[in-house]
Amino acid sequence: MRIALNSFAAALALAVPVAAQEAPKVAPSPGEIVAVAPASHWVAIAAADLLVMTLAPDRAGTKRQVVIQLMPPPFSQGWVGNIRKLAAAHWWDGLAITRVQDNYVVQWGDPDAEDRAKAKALPAGLGVMPSGAYVAPAPAGLGQSRFVNFSAYSDAFDDLVKGWPVGIDQDETMAPVHCYGMVGVGRNYSPDTGSGAELYTVIGHAPRHLDRNIALVGRVLEGIEHLSSLPRGTGPLGFYEKAEQRTPIQSIRLASELPAAEQPKFQYLSTESASFAKYADARANRRDPFFIVPAGGADICNIPVPIRRVPVSAK
Amino acid sequence: MRIALNSFAAALALAVPVAAQEAPKVAPSPGEIVAVAPASHWVAIAAADLLVMTLAPDRAGTKRQVVIQLMPPPFSQGWVGNIRKLAAAHWWDGLAITRVQDNYVVQWGDPDAEDRAKAKALPAGLGVMPSGAYVAPAPAGLGQSRFVNFSAYSDAFDDLVKGWPVGIDQDETMAPVHCYGMVGVGRNYSPDTGSGAELYTVIGHAPRHLDRNIALVGRVLEGIEHLSSLPRGTGPLGFYEKAEQRTPIQSIRLASELPAAEQPKFQYLSTESASFAKYADARANRRDPFFIVPAGGADICNIPVPIRRVPVSAK
Repeated sequence: MRIALNSFAAALALAVPVAAQEAPKVAPSPGEIVAVAPASHWVAIAAADLLVMTLAPDRAGTKRQVVIQLMPPPFSQGWVGNIRKLAAAHWWDGLAITRVQDNYVVQWGDPDAEDRAKAKALPAGLGVMPSGAYVAPAPAGLGQSRFVNFSAYSDAFDDLVKGWPVGIDQDETMAPVHCYGMVGVGRNYSPDTGSGAELYTVIGHAPRHLDRNIALVGRVLEGIEHLSSLPRGTGPLGFYEKAEQRTPIQSIRLASELPAAEQPKFQYLSTESASFAKYADARANRRDPFFIVPAGGADICNIPVPIRRVPVSAK
Repeated sequence: MRIALNSFAAALALAVPVAAQEAPKVAPSPGEIVAVAPASHWVAIAAADLLVMTLAPDRAGTKRQVVIQLMPPPFSQGWVGNIRKLAAAHWWDGLAITRVQDNYVVQWGDPDAEDRAKAKALPAGLGVMPSGAYVAPAPAGLGQSRFVNFSAYSDAFDDLVKGWPVGIDQDETMAPVHCYGMVGVGRNYSPDTGSGAELYTVIGHAPRHLDRNIALVGRVLEGIEHLSSLPRGTGPLGFYEKAEQRTPIQSIRLASELPAAEQPKFQYLSTESASFAKYADARANRRDPFFIVPAGGADICNIPVPIRRVPVSAK
């Protein structure tokens, strides 16, 4: 097989598929580093922090399930609280993917949200958050990034906090970063900050200009291909123009509401672990055989936090 | 209509679709700046520098055409020369999209390339390039970036040269950047540098670790959604596992070989123009009404070079 390129996901998922080429073994790839990380470096993700989105089956009848991890404190907890209430109310069931804009976002929610006569009523008791809640206090003592020697901000640096990519500003606040697969809250013009009923995920190059301007609430752990490969909408901003173009959402559930046997079990590689530090260094300086010139750096979205299904032996 | 987010492409393509919300007019968006750029700031792209890839129609019978611009000197001209020969020989006709890996690349070429008994013969006279040709001399006098205050490299900066995103190293060489939609040359392990017969385009966050490690030869100007929305391959590295999963390539032609009426005509906004400087500043500091906090910076892949079909009035 011709191997043109390599990537973390593939290297993690596979035994090296190019063994027949007998590549010289110079240094482990990022994926190889992750594959040998000890079990103690992995952190379990609670079922209560997972959303399971089930889309209508595709044309071939294949099941389409997307698993999303919600953010822990101190990030965006007002919106995360609303999303828990919306999921508990089964509010998204029967709604749809409304928008797919290439190199930008896939968005879902109520196609009739802007039509007062037809919009689906929201559950009672949702919170309304100020735009100041887009940021949170940064941890003390992080004077510079452990991993990244630059940032998309002119006066800040990027790091990973509690397993999440963040931009840290000189005012000692931090905000999550719009990397590929991150999930955020659609909103109208400020001062509207969105309820959490309209959600999107990033399917292109990280749109960092949205950081601090919109609430991020989670990330897709599995199944993003069911969203990123959808036909692009041909209306303004990638909205679908006809109802029949939208992919129906059968249900969105907190995993903790599912029968125990159906609850997906995931772990992430602790961003405080020695394995992660070694992995991040290898992402910034690829020394595995395919590479000739290490970059000497990687932006925070090119150091994706390794995620895996809990291995059978660890269940 | 609920507008969750905005983006360059949409803002360029549309009259502002949220007029009903009567947003305050604070400052023009990047798209609005581009929309009023004078004709003299636009540069025509020669038909001889365009590849037109026609895929088999989709399930609904819709035509699928992708237009690619090849790079000018001094970038990757050995590979670009090979690609011109391959196109002139109609070499890709009847071959296929072989690989779609989420958040990474779509790749096309000969599905049997690795099988000596079945591989399609290459045209005679293709050049073989050294890996040193991945870089070119940087223009004199660029001591720092005009647009970007950081880079993915520890000892370099990013800029735009002749309309293309490049990373410039302290050794005064430059290499094109793997932004979304850039087109590159698949290869095996070094010292193989690839012929240009196997090509890929980026469909995710910019994989900057590939810069200087592989030849970039162009970018997709139009129709990338026909590639980025294809089903992801389920084999190693996103290769399709069954022949019937591959999308057939009907033809790839240099536009200059097409009848004049069928030649697509594109322009790009000169990266030396005052309009581009204003646009780049607005990308880094969004002041249009949706935004609350300007980022104060944008990475080079978040300042995509504006491309358009030649307006009818200018034809």
